[in-house]
Amino acid sequence: MSPAEGVSDAEIEHLAGMANRLRRHVIKMTYFAGSGHPGGSLSAADMVAALYFRELRLDPSRPAWPDRDRFIMSKGHACPVWYAALAERGYFPVDDLWGLRSTGSHLQGHPDMRKTPGVDMTSGPLGSGLAAGVGMALGARITGRDFRTFVMLGEGDLQEGCTWEAAMLAGHRGLTNLVALVDYNRSQVDGRSDDIVRLDPLADKWRAWNWAVREVDGRDLHQVLDALSWATAPQDRPAVIIAHTVKGWPVSFMLDDPEWHGRAPDRDQAAAALAELGEVWAAPPRELKVEGSRSKVGLTPAAMAGQGDEAGARPDAPACIRPERGRERPRRVLRDAFGAELAALGADLPNLVVLDADISSSLKTGAFRMRYPERHVNFGVAEQEMFLAAAGLATTGLIPLACTYATFATLRAAEQVRSFIAYARLNVKIIASHGGLEVGWDGPTHQAGEDIAMMRAVPNMTVVVPADAASLPALLRQAVALDGPVYLRMGRNPVPILYDEGQPFTLGRAITVRQGADVALVACGPMVSLALEAAEQLEEQGIQAQVLDMHTVKPLDGEAVTRAAATGAIVTVEDHTILGGLGGAVAEHLAEHCPTPLVRVGIPDTFGRSGDPAELFPLYGMAVSDIVGAVLRVLQRKKAPAAP
Amino acid sequence: MSPAEGVSDAEIEHLAGMANRLRRHVIKMTYFAGSGHPGGSLSAADMVAALYFRELRLDPSRPAWPDRDRFIMSKGHACPVWYAALAERGYFPVDDLWGLRSTGSHLQGHPDMRKTPGVDMTSGPLGSGLAAGVGMALGARITGRDFRTFVMLGEGDLQEGCTWEAAMLAGHRGLTNLVALVDYNRSQVDGRSDDIVRLDPLADKWRAWNWAVREVDGRDLHQVLDALSWATAPQDRPAVIIAHTVKGWPVSFMLDDPEWHGRAPDRDQAAAALAELGEVWAAPPRELKVEGSRSKVGLTPAAMAGQGDEAGARPDAPACIRPERGRERPRRVLRDAFGAELAALGADLPNLVVLDADISSSLKTGAFRMRYPERHVNFGVAEQEMFLAAAGLATTGLIPLACTYATFATLRAAEQVRSFIAYARLNVKIIASHGGLEVGWDGPTHQAGEDIAMMRAVPNMTVVVPADAASLPALLRQAVALDGPVYLRMGRNPVPILYDEGQPFTLGRAITVRQGADVALVACGPMVSLALEAAEQLEEQGIQAQVLDMHTVKPLDGEAVTRAAATGAIVTVEDHTILGGLGGAVAEHLAEHCPTPLVRVGIPDTFGRSGDPAELFPLYGMAVSDIVGAVLRVLQRKKAPAAP
Repeated sequence: MSPAEGVSDAEIEHLAGMANRLRRHVIKMTYFAGSGHPGGSLSAADMVAALYFRELRLDPSRPAWPDRDRFIMSKGHACPVWYAALAERGYFPVDDLWGLRSTGSHLQGHPDMRKTPGVDMTSGPLGSGLAAGVGMALGARITGRDFRTFVMLGEGDLQEGCTWEAAMLAGHRGLTNLVALVDYNRSQVDGRSDDIVRLDPLADKWRAWNWAVREVDGRDLHQVLDALSWATAPQDRPAVIIAHTVKGWPVSFMLDDPEWHGRAPDRDQAAAALAELGEVWAAPPRELKVEGSRSKVGLTPAAMAGQGDEAGARPDAPACIRPERGRERPRRVLRDAFGAELAALGADLPNLVVLDADISSSLKTGAFRMRYPERHVNFGVAEQEMFLAAAGLATTGLIPLACTYATFATLRAAEQVRSFIAYARLNVKIIASHGGLEVGWDGPTHQAGEDIAMMRAVPNMTVVVPADAASLPALLRQAVALDGPVYLRMGRNPVPILYDEGQPFTLGRAITVRQGADVALVACGPMVSLALEAAEQLEEQGIQAQVLDMHTVKPLDGEAVTRAAATGAIVTVEDHTILGGLGGAVAEHLAEHCPTPLVRVGIPDTFGRSGDPAELFPLYGMAVSDIVGAVLRVLQRKKAPAAP
Repeated sequence: MSPAEGVSDAEIEHLAGMANRLRRHVIKMTYFAGSGHPGGSLSAADMVAALYFRELRLDPSRPAWPDRDRFIMSKGHACPVWYAALAERGYFPVDDLWGLRSTGSHLQGHPDMRKTPGVDMTSGPLGSGLAAGVGMALGARITGRDFRTFVMLGEGDLQEGCTWEAAMLAGHRGLTNLVALVDYNRSQVDGRSDDIVRLDPLADKWRAWNWAVREVDGRDLHQVLDALSWATAPQDRPAVIIAHTVKGWPVSFMLDDPEWHGRAPDRDQAAAALAELGEVWAAPPRELKVEGSRSKVGLTPAAMAGQGDEAGARPDAPACIRPERGRERPRRVLRDAFGAELAALGADLPNLVVLDADISSSLKTGAFRMRYPERHVNFGVAEQEMFLAAAGLATTGLIPLACTYATFATLRAAEQVRSFIAYARLNVKIIASHGGLEVGWDGPTHQAGEDIAMMRAVPNMTVVVPADAASLPALLRQAVALDGPVYLRMGRNPVPILYDEGQPFTLGRAITVRQGADVALVACGPMVSLALEAAEQLEEQGIQAQVLDMHTVKPLDGEAVTRAAATGAIVTVEDHTILGGLGGAVAEHLAEHCPTPLVRVGIPDTFGRSGDPAELFPLYGMAVSDIVGAVLRVLQRKKAPAAP
């Protein structure tokens, strides 16, 4: 280390010790959580320590103090090291750290400014922090306050154009109260950024954007402190510190390995990492962590309603459903089925191309990429570009399958999908995973709860939500065969396999997975299984519930809904907001064709939170018991229609 | 002009003559259309002539020829000069040009690849063309074709981050079959880009993005041709030509004047401009242009249904409605009322800040900006940044009103609004104009038809759609007083003033603007006036129609809908898709509380087209007569409910 001006050796030593302590917390937090992002947390630890234990003007007893310096972790997945610093700085008890990502905790999978003291800006979706920081810096100017705003960026942030929009305005306006720190570990989810979409010459980029630039070794606290002094000294433009770091540093088996971007250590790995960090730790079992934290959750399980039963008309055509009941059915992750079918499709269709945006490992496109590298493009973290490029590719006679999480496809790239793909009816397939509350631990920024409503509102769009890994291959093939845009939504977790071989699937045609004349459950995606479980429980009460798998939400199978309405009572079940999605589509059909009492089960017009889906579903009124309750409520209305 | 290598003087003269001819077409086209974008069309004319009459490998008789070179006009508003070149090149008759932006024409206000022969990519929303071009260039590589892709960019494109995402990938992959041309006239809607968000040092930016750069005088055809030769010669990276141009060139009264970005010349101005361009033209009246072109429209007016009437319950509380009937009511543009009230709010609320994204003139924020320049920020064409910065500003105790068109607020910035503003419940007001088909001439890329559905699906969001310029000020003030995110949607055109002074307005509380017991019309925005007209016509048939102004679509006034359902029949009326918006919200309420026959009037799940809204509304089934027809249809169902 070169000596930093005006900083004592003792202080450097103290900060280095703190950085080490934060790293140890990161290991334990992600171990306890069983998920999370250790790699980019470790690489940023020295900078976070320098900021929180020397540079930032803060008062942990007053998190809302208007004159505090602001810090934004734009690479929001690295929140473990940030939470660790906030705890050590006194914003909340260190023991809270062990609840990371659990249902009862205020520590979400990605930072939530409304839940965690000391978090000044929500983050997670990359490429957003610098623009939010521009707002804070402008706000300081307008309100005449002298606080500074610091934004930490990763490679993904720099691949997203929004970062460069913000950098342009900051340079134009000379926002000298804004400092960017790049945790430049050159590693992202899908590998090395130099391979995916390289950022060099990175310093030239910032200079051309009218920023002052300094490059440092981000592991050398002398250099980091010097650079912070330089960046906060009077100058005529905003300053960026490009800190060269190493992902996973200094844990030997995590070093510079993209695998550790978003994987939690197991018990042995955690103990080994801590040993390297100087701590002997006999890791307790993960289950110990959440004790006593449940009470922090503000939500209560939805109350259930009364009972009832009544006869109705009879639906048709039995489905080929596996014989097991409820939770006994074997489970499979839809993305795995997608990846396997994709590779097979690649052989059948030479004009199929697959596009990724840095999460190919999550979307399971690897087998296709290995076999057909010339037909695979990874855009890095740049979803808007990916969908526009998909439009361009489609015009050359190719069939692009553009793969990402549902929030990024339908929110980040909403205009690209609507105004360029759908308006032009281009033959692009939007493959989205991580739909719904079922995403769990990653938190609301990654839980797509509005995507079906949004895609359904877009003309020319077909919206497909397969229920299980058995129906996915057939529905995927039909989506690809359709000449036009399709939105195909999958969840994250394993879901029961419902269908036996021999079950036919047709886009736009619902499947009656269970007969029943008293009430109809119209469900999609992973909720079909829960609806079936609910129907099995209702049978024990003498209620015969029909269950429809509405795998195509648009175009809606109106005939099937009309037939279902013959029961006199309908419950829709979806892992999505109850506004405008499957429930909305069914409500519209009923009102226009056959007014019938309806109850919608789904996300109740609120944002979710991090946690185990098994805990979240009851909290948000989406468990099997809630479906049963909804049926009992709607049956009450069937017997005695409400006076208008 | 310096001589271009290998180009004869005669050819240069021919191209210069063609550029002049294209410019004359632009003047006539925008004059006839009465709207459109002449300034940026004129500045690009020399480059377009050089491309279409020398550089591009094309066959107008085969617009879909797979080996053709591709051209994308990313600055899509400059389509007049492009259409002129396509016509002169033989893609369609020159006479088609005079139908620009009219209902019967294939020439949309912004380029539509599905309507205009020779248009290879839809465009309009800035910052999209280069990414689409990346897709085409990748497609050429994958399919083994040697066509080249040329993308023309303006200042707005370069302020949008998506352009830099695409530039990054193109640089990384060395897409040498891709050429960008920057029509660098340094002028955008709101003024000079050097003042709003400067782009210099522009060449350095591209170099830092690993592109080869050449700067030329874009009016010098020798330089342009030389640069095209250079750009298409073998090299190791994509090439960009930065062409320094002058907006409006060479029409003296348009020169370098941002006013002429999006304003059509009147008859005298058109004649004067043409005289400067060497043509004596006695301008015919604008009305002559659309003769014989109506038949090209594929849509037919929606068929009307039967008649009927029946008694029902009685709603309450009369509204203070102006005495005039139907079309006699005076009209006012809501944006004007917004601009005036905004300036007044600025005096009352010192913490109000106004954000614009280059269309401040359209959003009428000028009076506020003039009075409170320190509380106004123009982000240029960078909506994602604007909404994130609004989030940041809100955290400093300010109340940001972020103003743009509805498509950009809810599509381009969908994730920023949802995951950063709504999730965090930040006190940001989203002020959106240009909602609905009523936008007319600008075409589908600018006609927000899904915004209400999208914003309604977002938790924590209040959605307000004022019906007239009299209700807007009160609803705006209440929106600002509410501590949380609000989406306020306005149309583009003048709408009748419905309310007299003395009418109270309350967010979340519908107004019964007309009593009637036979049927209820639930409308929002400019459709309240049309619903009222329909009710007046129905009265002549002896049908008493209640009309509700549902100015707050979320939270929906459920009690009012339940009362309306007492009539036994409901028609919803909105300038928005019938899926998931007001119609969807009412359908959901009815199904959950009081199943009642419903017919939804709105955009029928299809994209619009350019044209006069007075012509578009009947084509899309949204005219007064369509509302009357919808009422007659729903009354049939009231009498004889459909068998489920």
